Amino acid sequence: MPRPRIPLLSEDRIADAAIELVDSGDPFGVNALARRLGVTPSSLYNHVDGRDGIIELMRGRLGRRYLPELPEGAWDEVVAETLRGMRRLYAGHPAVVPLLVGKTITDPSVIASYDGLTTALIDGGFPDDEVLAVVAVLDSFALGFGLDLASPDDIWQPQGETRTLGRLLGSAERGSTRSERAFELGLELLLESLRLRLARISAR
Amino acid sequence: MPRPRIPLLSEDRIADAAIELVDSGDPFGVNALARRLGVTPSSLYNHVDGRDGIIELMRGRLGRRYLPELPEGAWDEVVAETLRGMRRLYAGHPAVVPLLVGKTITDPSVIASYDGLTTALIDGGFPDDEVLAVVAVLDSFALGFGLDLASPDDIWQPQGETRTLGRLLGSAERGSTRSERAFELGLELLLESLRLRLARISAR
Repeated sequence: MPRPRIPLLSEDRIADAAIELVDSGDPFGVNALARRLGVTPSSLYNHVDGRDGIIELMRGRLGRRYLPELPEGAWDEVVAETLRGMRRLYAGHPAVVPLLVGKTITDPSVIASYDGLTTALIDGGFPDDEVLAVVAVLDSFALGFGLDLASPDDIWQPQGETRTLGRLLGSAERGSTRSERAFELGLELLLESLRLRLARISAR
Repeated sequence: MPRPRIPLLSEDRIADAAIELVDSGDPFGVNALARRLGVTPSSLYNHVDGRDGIIELMRGRLGRRYLPELPEGAWDEVVAETLRGMRRLYAGHPAVVPLLVGKTITDPSVIASYDGLTTALIDGGFPDDEVLAVVAVLDSFALGFGLDLASPDDIWQPQGETRTLGRLLGSAERGSTRSERAFELGLELLLESLRLRLARISAR
């Protein structure tokens, strides 16, 4: 009897199935992923190093899709490009976020992306002992704004009198228009104060 | 036969049990919560308006614990105080975050907290059509930094040569020391550029 024609397992195919599984809201685990791929858990273990290995495959797959691998240009262009990519990644896959943030990053393409970002910041003039803190600020910012896109159209619905909030809500933007505008404001505020900080450092 | 002495259901007791349930990583739902409280789902429905109502009780309970209800002072003090509170809330209950951000806010004490924040920004001189975008920036920032605290001690572990990242990691801070310092830097950057923006608005 011929064996059924199941496409061979590949790292990309495993990563895609894992992302779909988590996006769907079902609990993530090696057995659930094997079922979705139509293979046995043991054949999955031939390709990946357990649960942590699968998370790293997901990170790599998403990173190559959303992040600039080798960002080039002035530091502020690299920062803006990286932030936009990270935000789209987190916004597109909010359920994957808790898995990604809880684990050490080893995937080579995502490491390359952060290496490009830190290199751009160093080349731009930020001091060695400040660059990783700046990266954490950028990361947190992108993460928060990615999840902000998942907010409902009406964020607040006051049930009684308010001093200010109710009045502002009357003419407020909603949905993705609101979130886009807030992201652009946040990016502008962040870049402006980073430029100011850099100018002060150069003037020392 | 005397009835077993089970404490009466209260909104706070329901909220606390729901927060514990979600923090524990178990799936959240009305039936699971009723089991944890040792009551029937129908007696739970006497107190809350289903799943959405429970999420709002959790928001209120956490808000009263972490947020300044009626923040007072200069706008930048109110912003700093609110950001610190929101970050602690999100960091302490990361699994609750997806439930909270996906739903319209109606809880009166959390509405009062945002009303205080928007009032402080208006009193500080920010224009009507910009205040809610500033609030979204602050919210995203707090959310990202709350989740940043859940990062592992080693965020990156490059497997090969890097241009910059590996060198910086050699002397990098780790764990909560790293996250605290990054949060303080982010807060400083944000407040600085908001002050600058306000100065420009006043000069118009």
